Amino acid sequence: MVTRAGIVVTGTEVLTGRVPDRNGPWLAEQLRRLGLDVGHVVVVGDRPEDLRATLSFLAGLGTELLITTGGLGPTADDLTAQVVAEFQGRPSAVDPALEGRVAAVVERLMARRGWVADPAATAAGVRKQATVPAGATVLEPVGTAPGLVVPPADGRAGPPVVVLPGPPGELRGMWPAAVAAPAVGAVLAGAAELRQETLRLWGTLEAQLAATLREMEAELADLEITTCLREGELEIVTRFPAQAQPAYDRFAGLLGREYASTVFSTGPTLDELVAAALAERGLTIATGESCTGGLLAARLTERPGSSTYVLGGVTAYANGAKEELLGVPRAVLAEHGAVSPEVARALADGARARFGADLGVGITGVAGPGGGTDAKPVGTVHLCVVGPDGAVAERALGLHGSRSAVRDRSVTMALHLLRELLLGGPPA
Amino acid sequence: MVTRAGIVVTGTEVLTGRVPDRNGPWLAEQLRRLGLDVGHVVVVGDRPEDLRATLSFLAGLGTELLITTGGLGPTADDLTAQVVAEFQGRPSAVDPALEGRVAAVVERLMARRGWVADPAATAAGVRKQATVPAGATVLEPVGTAPGLVVPPADGRAGPPVVVLPGPPGELRGMWPAAVAAPAVGAVLAGAAELRQETLRLWGTLEAQLAATLREMEAELADLEITTCLREGELEIVTRFPAQAQPAYDRFAGLLGREYASTVFSTGPTLDELVAAALAERGLTIATGESCTGGLLAARLTERPGSSTYVLGGVTAYANGAKEELLGVPRAVLAEHGAVSPEVARALADGARARFGADLGVGITGVAGPGGGTDAKPVGTVHLCVVGPDGAVAERALGLHGSRSAVRDRSVTMALHLLRELLLGGPPA
Repeated sequence: MVTRAGIVVTGTEVLTGRVPDRNGPWLAEQLRRLGLDVGHVVVVGDRPEDLRATLSFLAGLGTELLITTGGLGPTADDLTAQVVAEFQGRPSAVDPALEGRVAAVVERLMARRGWVADPAATAAGVRKQATVPAGATVLEPVGTAPGLVVPPADGRAGPPVVVLPGPPGELRGMWPAAVAAPAVGAVLAGAAELRQETLRLWGTLEAQLAATLREMEAELADLEITTCLREGELEIVTRFPAQAQPAYDRFAGLLGREYASTVFSTGPTLDELVAAALAERGLTIATGESCTGGLLAARLTERPGSSTYVLGGVTAYANGAKEELLGVPRAVLAEHGAVSPEVARALADGARARFGADLGVGITGVAGPGGGTDAKPVGTVHLCVVGPDGAVAERALGLHGSRSAVRDRSVTMALHLLRELLLGGPPA
Repeated sequence: MVTRAGIVVTGTEVLTGRVPDRNGPWLAEQLRRLGLDVGHVVVVGDRPEDLRATLSFLAGLGTELLITTGGLGPTADDLTAQVVAEFQGRPSAVDPALEGRVAAVVERLMARRGWVADPAATAAGVRKQATVPAGATVLEPVGTAPGLVVPPADGRAGPPVVVLPGPPGELRGMWPAAVAAPAVGAVLAGAAELRQETLRLWGTLEAQLAATLREMEAELADLEITTCLREGELEIVTRFPAQAQPAYDRFAGLLGREYASTVFSTGPTLDELVAAALAERGLTIATGESCTGGLLAARLTERPGSSTYVLGGVTAYANGAKEELLGVPRAVLAEHGAVSPEVARALADGARARFGADLGVGITGVAGPGGGTDAKPVGTVHLCVVGPDGAVAERALGLHGSRSAVRDRSVTMALHLLRELLLGGPPA
């Protein structure tokens, strides 16, 4: 029997897209590891009646644990704690000891930033944040807002509600305390382990895979399989209870044989594969980017420990910069134009030479929306990777979509080119 | 009377956080411009019963327009069209003309990528994607999947459901056709314009603002005000019907006077302000980054037309690269260490000189999780901007949070430093 959880993300700023929700997905993954299956993530604005209706909806579905994020600030539109208290039938009151601790945190914060505020206004905000439903477990603030675990009032049925703050750093810092709360522990005790495995294919049509899955249908009863096509990569994620491990192993083995020429990973992401290959082989890398403007360097250095293999990179938007900083010959620029395989090669060679790296990557193209011509329309991108032993991998792309789509896809393709050069597998 | 819409994002890959939802926020903004108010964005997995329950929940709230995204692919877990058809009480059948058009799209796509697939498998996927509820409006595919507008069956009550594909480029390309469908037009005809204005403050405590809002409460009846604190920026977004414009103007005027020293924008984002200042004054910029690894260059070049003012940047992770590519003196590195105000200054000077730019930005720090010391813990970051007339703005930061939080916040602070140097206003 699956134990289900529901997540409610509050905040008009999330609902209207001004702030992306980083909490729902993170919580869904934490809950999965604890054996809980998340059925819904609901984003609602700062309106009490919408939040109330959502809590009722999820509780009515048989959800055994509810989690809310956001709406714990000092302003009037932050109303989660109050709505949850009413939903669970518990009266609220100021917790004086908590009020003192929150006040101390706010004072420290203001001192560090050098901000000043009216003491009465600050005190009112603190009092609001220290107002707690009777019988709730208080989760100590990581920022200024305390979290809560609020079980239904005695004699009432329904799931406990975990009330967490909106800022992702605060929420994550508070999570261990939430999991340790007695009301949450009681739910987790009934949850069974739920495993998750991933296969990644490059160069297989989703419809082809669908046919394979239909043929195997009888053997897949205990596996929950979802496929997702993203930037050309076909990702197959399977979730299953521990006892279905043999069934998954048979499934993965079969797919591995059927799609031997396109499976490039049995778990790690493209970024993880490239990083591991560089680190394990002690190779260093440098980038020479034009249209992607530093995105490849930023993506390579996103990973902790990347300073052991990333030496650096040059973003050379202007032609002068391509010549000066990466030694792209003026004659090559004049003859072939900045967007050409020759310049991609020269950028890769230049990055490799200037940084003294084992590998160099060059990217040049037209990201748009302006700058396209008949011969080189928006989306024309040339990639080149030069390897340690003189190996070269090149690729010309004709991409579609927005400026950000062209830039993102170019960086992903450069990583596939690196993967191909370092590890073999399906061609980029 | 407000006309409300609800958005349902389907896909286990979104629910579990493997893919961020880019459609919900975008649709919420489009709907707002059309005068519709979005009450909920619900993310559900690829399970028919969860999708069905969500459609019922939203329709039961009096929602007048429902939009679904995703679940239109050729695999068995793509079930949105079928569930919506049943929900609206309409039988489905293959549309042979549409089947032909989808087949042609799939063939072109495979040819371009050089992929091969079993013709029977491909045909089955195409047939699935061309299966349409009776009486629905078909939205021509932008990728391979057609969209749908499905009104309730004759004699039934309830909102029409707009069924859109998951890939953001396809969804956006299809949106004009969805808005033009008769069933959607009928809903929009009843919607009134809903305006939205934004004020941005830097250096005001949220609790202080809350006190001001409480004092003004009587005058704010027609304004829906939400405040959001993000990376130190306090964003005040107000939504109101057209007739409340004078009330908003009074509110904005009052806040502008009360918070004159911290309001830095009456609309544009930080990035937009910096880009406009550079473009309007004909200034060029170059970056010298260490711990942010190209993120600042990538963020500056995200904007269309940025090539007129961004000359380029160097990511210098290794000390050798700082010396070679940006001329940071070895003695400065040895004496002060790579993470120091002196090196931030040298990176800014070096970037400015090497690229021949009007402005140079230098960033050096410890992004973590490793590399921290007692004297320079993780989160220590030094920023420097050198301007055209020898003006210099510097800042030392002690940031908290993850590697990505430290990198993102450093880039945001560098943009505030640029804003301060170019435009004045609250100090970074």
